[in-house]
Amino acid sequence: MHSNFLGNILTINLSKIAENYATIQQQLSYRTDIGAVVKSNAYGIGAKEITTFLNALGCKQFFVSTWQEGVEIRSVTDELIYVLHGIDDPKITTIYIEQNLTPVLNHLGQIALWNQVGREQKHKVKAMLNLETGLGRIGLDGSELRQLLARPELIEYIDITYIMSHLACAEQYSHPQNRAQLATFRELFGLFTEKKASLANSAATFLGQDYHFDLVRIGCALFGINPSSHLTINPMQSVVELQGYILQHKIIEKDQNIGYRALHRAKKGDKFFILSCGYVDGYSRFMSDKGFCYAHGKFLPIVGIVGMDMTIVDASALPEALFYATNHVELLGKNISIDDVGKYANNIGYELIITKFNNKLKRIYTNA
Amino acid sequence: MHSNFLGNILTINLSKIAENYATIQQQLSYRTDIGAVVKSNAYGIGAKEITTFLNALGCKQFFVSTWQEGVEIRSVTDELIYVLHGIDDPKITTIYIEQNLTPVLNHLGQIALWNQVGREQKHKVKAMLNLETGLGRIGLDGSELRQLLARPELIEYIDITYIMSHLACAEQYSHPQNRAQLATFRELFGLFTEKKASLANSAATFLGQDYHFDLVRIGCALFGINPSSHLTINPMQSVVELQGYILQHKIIEKDQNIGYRALHRAKKGDKFFILSCGYVDGYSRFMSDKGFCYAHGKFLPIVGIVGMDMTIVDASALPEALFYATNHVELLGKNISIDDVGKYANNIGYELIITKFNNKLKRIYTNA
Repeated sequence: MHSNFLGNILTINLSKIAENYATIQQQLSYRTDIGAVVKSNAYGIGAKEITTFLNALGCKQFFVSTWQEGVEIRSVTDELIYVLHGIDDPKITTIYIEQNLTPVLNHLGQIALWNQVGREQKHKVKAMLNLETGLGRIGLDGSELRQLLARPELIEYIDITYIMSHLACAEQYSHPQNRAQLATFRELFGLFTEKKASLANSAATFLGQDYHFDLVRIGCALFGINPSSHLTINPMQSVVELQGYILQHKIIEKDQNIGYRALHRAKKGDKFFILSCGYVDGYSRFMSDKGFCYAHGKFLPIVGIVGMDMTIVDASALPEALFYATNHVELLGKNISIDDVGKYANNIGYELIITKFNNKLKRIYTNA
Repeated sequence: MHSNFLGNILTINLSKIAENYATIQQQLSYRTDIGAVVKSNAYGIGAKEITTFLNALGCKQFFVSTWQEGVEIRSVTDELIYVLHGIDDPKITTIYIEQNLTPVLNHLGQIALWNQVGREQKHKVKAMLNLETGLGRIGLDGSELRQLLARPELIEYIDITYIMSHLACAEQYSHPQNRAQLATFRELFGLFTEKKASLANSAATFLGQDYHFDLVRIGCALFGINPSSHLTINPMQSVVELQGYILQHKIIEKDQNIGYRALHRAKKGDKFFILSCGYVDGYSRFMSDKGFCYAHGKFLPIVGIVGMDMTIVDASALPEALFYATNHVELLGKNISIDDVGKYANNIGYELIITKFNNKLKRIYTNA
């Protein structure tokens, strides 16, 4: 606890990211590399800090969604940066060249644009090629791919580093679509010679080595999320701790309602913490009347509706001296995992938890 | 439509904020002023831009939650800035003085600290005093207030500008707690002489002039949110438009599953837009399989689970030429109001919509 700071604190434990990186490596054979997915500000954790740290760990390939995100992490790494959304705008091709960003090409229009860039550069430019194998999202489908292969001049100036695709159901271990997409990917990938392949995200990495190929693309698992529904014990270490700052300590003088819409009835003597942390800071509104926080060995319930920047906690379980001596409560951390928070909120999914941390929070990166 | 920009666009229509400001003014008598609540980056809309604009409209009092937010808007206004969370940390009192930030004092500890600041300044320092009248959150309760009034030396160096409180149930027009809190507030406010008072937020402003006193504090209504459950037609103008950029146009070649978990079955010939906009950008994940977007006179359904930065739309209703000619769809705007989006998502509340816009979105401020 950094209880001297009188505000909310988000602590990111880099050593846990290193442990998660090692856990992923243990799943892989020697021939498979790890690419780190640091899009969306590294899922809210901090793209520059995480890229710097993973780079030092030996990670040599990074994935972002947009060129703006690519430019941001280019300031901290010289390694390969892939832009998952590709390249659409002829006006920004110079940024890709100057910043050495490598697009993932998702359709024939993007391929034509990037091939033209290579022609102008008078040498081949690197790209990854994304195939649509059943997710129904971005990527070339089979007929576009055959069209492409029939006309090699379309990719004359492109050096394809990897052929990739993305699974729809990788979190569901036994879903038949996983093997179906694997078969489709193998078939389409077989149309190329001497290329490398990438199919697996975090969840698919835990489907087994059939899915690994040459590169796995790891995002959520690095940041402590359980990557698969069949793993009842999360193999990943929790990376983030969120400590809510107590703005006011309140002992009820006479019975009264508490919180918006007057839904909670408090009795004389009940103790409450009013936290300066709410849904805008990244503490989910779905914790309203459902969540718990932790302090001094006690799980304390969230009372009423989580506000924009305030949350009420019933701290009656704490003796008075300890109650007044407390500056922060744990909203997420050693005692309350991301999985716990997800369960409090009817399994809303980790996305609504870790990606929403606000830049108002004080961020501490530790490697302890 | 700014269809030349190949990315997501958030348009903030300042003239609609001016209309909403005028609508609020029409509710008020000549003796009541408007204070603008621009906490949380003006509910995600942009604190500096909104403060600048409202200042020019004549607004002379602004509310933020934290001193950091206060410092941000001090760079664009010379008017009064109130910090709702008050002041806790003796180490940052100099920031309050240098930046001319006025705390809302919520308990005796904050009062003691601010009184000490005045003593050191050798003159009275301004503050608002927050009373707890039934919300059960921050603020002095009756006994603390009487303690304070019995010992005037506790506020010897404080110039109290307003006595304020906050209602728990103002959105519920007929809730008995509204009148109960009003009575409590009147009673406690009556203990002061020659002070001004502020009780109403946006919702309470629509409870009638009894609730207005000298200052109303308006946040959500300025930004287009319906402030009260009894107003079946939202009296506020919609302020924001979100246009999702189409990353890929996809016509299905043979029947296939679409989206994560393979929940949607698409038929040959179905048309889909893949948007480069997802929940990290502020498009709610609760739109998954429920929401609609709008293009060319058609309401097009969101298909499958809204991803971190991608969303799939069934655009089969559009003829092929128009389908391919479209770069953006309206996710929020003239045809899809915030209230509509709230309904699509089981009335999750506006908070999850407008406060979550990401800084990855291109923002355009217009006054048309």
